[in-house]
Amino acid sequence: MTIIPGGVCAAKGFTAAGIHCGIRKNHTKKDLALIVSRQKGHAAAVYTTNLVKGAPLDVTKAHISDGCAQAIICNSGNANTCNADGIQVAEQTASLLGAALHIDAKDVVVASTGVIGQPLDITPIQNGIPALVEALSENGSAEAAEAIMTTDTVQKEIAVSFEISGKTCTLGGIAKGSGMIHPNLATMLVFLTTDAAISADMLQKALSTDVQSTFNMVSIDGDTSTNDMVTILANGMAGNDEIVSEGADFDAFMEALNTVTVHLCRCIAADGEGATKLLECAVTGAKDEPNAKTIAKSVVCSSLLKAAMFGADANWGRVLCAIGYSGAEVDVHKVGVSFSSKSGIVKVCEQGAGVPFSEEAAKKVLSEDEIDILVTLGDGTASATAWGCDLTYDYVKINGDYRT
Amino acid sequence: MTIIPGGVCAAKGFTAAGIHCGIRKNHTKKDLALIVSRQKGHAAAVYTTNLVKGAPLDVTKAHISDGCAQAIICNSGNANTCNADGIQVAEQTASLLGAALHIDAKDVVVASTGVIGQPLDITPIQNGIPALVEALSENGSAEAAEAIMTTDTVQKEIAVSFEISGKTCTLGGIAKGSGMIHPNLATMLVFLTTDAAISADMLQKALSTDVQSTFNMVSIDGDTSTNDMVTILANGMAGNDEIVSEGADFDAFMEALNTVTVHLCRCIAADGEGATKLLECAVTGAKDEPNAKTIAKSVVCSSLLKAAMFGADANWGRVLCAIGYSGAEVDVHKVGVSFSSKSGIVKVCEQGAGVPFSEEAAKKVLSEDEIDILVTLGDGTASATAWGCDLTYDYVKINGDYRT
Repeated sequence: MTIIPGGVCAAKGFTAAGIHCGIRKNHTKKDLALIVSRQKGHAAAVYTTNLVKGAPLDVTKAHISDGCAQAIICNSGNANTCNADGIQVAEQTASLLGAALHIDAKDVVVASTGVIGQPLDITPIQNGIPALVEALSENGSAEAAEAIMTTDTVQKEIAVSFEISGKTCTLGGIAKGSGMIHPNLATMLVFLTTDAAISADMLQKALSTDVQSTFNMVSIDGDTSTNDMVTILANGMAGNDEIVSEGADFDAFMEALNTVTVHLCRCIAADGEGATKLLECAVTGAKDEPNAKTIAKSVVCSSLLKAAMFGADANWGRVLCAIGYSGAEVDVHKVGVSFSSKSGIVKVCEQGAGVPFSEEAAKKVLSEDEIDILVTLGDGTASATAWGCDLTYDYVKINGDYRT
Repeated sequence: MTIIPGGVCAAKGFTAAGIHCGIRKNHTKKDLALIVSRQKGHAAAVYTTNLVKGAPLDVTKAHISDGCAQAIICNSGNANTCNADGIQVAEQTASLLGAALHIDAKDVVVASTGVIGQPLDITPIQNGIPALVEALSENGSAEAAEAIMTTDTVQKEIAVSFEISGKTCTLGGIAKGSGMIHPNLATMLVFLTTDAAISADMLQKALSTDVQSTFNMVSIDGDTSTNDMVTILANGMAGNDEIVSEGADFDAFMEALNTVTVHLCRCIAADGEGATKLLECAVTGAKDEPNAKTIAKSVVCSSLLKAAMFGADANWGRVLCAIGYSGAEVDVHKVGVSFSSKSGIVKVCEQGAGVPFSEEAAKKVLSEDEIDILVTLGDGTASATAWGCDLTYDYVKINGDYRT
């Protein structure tokens, strides 16, 4: 497997574009993205668990209920959520795009991100679609990635090439997500494309399995968004024998998918609103995987620990505290904690109690921009990893006045 | 029922003191508090649900297992948690105090608050106890309240007088709590005293019932501390017939208790680390009380909403979002939301969708230091209230470097 450029356009037959159509007042900020496959393919998606759901999610769910899709359209600047006419606007978006691309509106995936509860005017979308379609290009991934950004500060894309039964396949993705991000998705939008041939069922199975250990293990602020969605389109143009069951081919596909999604998870966590540091909590020795996941998530979600990491303060008591209230089954008297980064590793707790360590060395380790929090338990052999970021002044600043 | 001065010394037979004994390096900060009843009385307590528990909690649990106690000693500056010798130090503290007061060490309640995982040296406590006992006074409540403060910025105390069967009774309390505070207790220490005569069983029942709708509904930052404890001593010196069952007397006691605890809850939330605003979320029309509580808690716990409140931004979509991911059973299409303060009330959402409102009026309402978030549901008749605070730059500052 090799990491390659091209993002969502790396796989055969995919083009993308991103433009400013006028949903946002700022003319320099793109606000409408499009990804299109030359031929109709299989589609799968996972959605937010929030009971309050963006209208685009309902429309997308209905559209890909047959396991197929050909295009993805996504606007930023408005979530189209909690609006009386939300479904209508999302359906209209799909219809307008379908007409412009000469495809069935039911093969269009619709997504939105931005502020909740303000009606989404269809006019700028309607006026923008011709230019958007015109702009479609094999080099368009970065522009699409830019157009779905809200408070994101960097574009998030990646692609990998890999082999399935002797055929070279490609899988790529773009993502947005910076705030309102919490396990079980968040305002996190991830669009993945692949030219691998895989049945709709196996595609959904691959995606649903993968998100359990990737996007569902990312938290920025504990707020699960109303509009999260991870979607994958597979157009089969790599020419491999279609994957219709588990086995070596499916494993190769899962490995490629996981490489792409873990990269995007790390991008999202590192670009958390106001974040200066990526936090990765790796739990080992847990009783079972659910307990390992619960603990890893609880640690990266602790506001107190996140603030301590911002201050490069080795306040490991807050790690223990977060483990203790996580709800996981754990013997707290067997817990070990180390902090690690490219500047080294410092053990701070063993058997549930503090051990002497150099404050100077710890400060050095914690001053890097990627911190690993290594938690060892004495309860079994299961493990899990969760991603988050530090809590900073800028998180407060960004969210203190986002809407106005 | 009348609110009166005196805090934990308002009830007959109670004295208190607070001194600097040397646990903290800062000589001007008191770090050791004592509350004593002239005669042994009944005692009840509730504790943190964190699996990682401070050693003093284990010792206190054992000491009041007979339903009785006579004194409470509490240090700040060190939580005596995750220390190999924690139990021994907490037991030693009780023994030293028992000897000084000529009471059984088993009638001493021990509590600690401060940093986790640093051994607590008994020396300053041992050296300080004579002066602490010497300082006991009927006017000592404020000094005890001061000595249990950590990042708290204000002392928290209150007392009420009330009638039980023609006898005047008094119930008072002091509290500390500012960060690491989350439903199901937090680094929240609350010490209550009363001269009402009430059996140990009914005292525990009263406290356990009351905390469900008071201290368990306060959240500052989602972190549940390892050292939380709410303790009440009842010495019976008011001379009322002992309350041994439910009925009018028990109801009068519960009402007094609730007045004191709600006041302390509001004090704790308003003094949240870095907070500039008290948030109170009142949910009505819920299917049942558990759902009402889940929703109220979820709203005051949302980092995004807390940051918006700091910025006086009427971003009601974040209230809907927090309701949606709360896990409660709720029809999101029937939700109404209003923001209220002494500057007025602004309705922002009806039937799950936004309604037009004056941004200017909303800004005015949200610029006050006590904000009520009124959530109406269409699911039933149950209600609940939760308390929290805004998320500010200062929360990050305080917690970015607390330990060093």
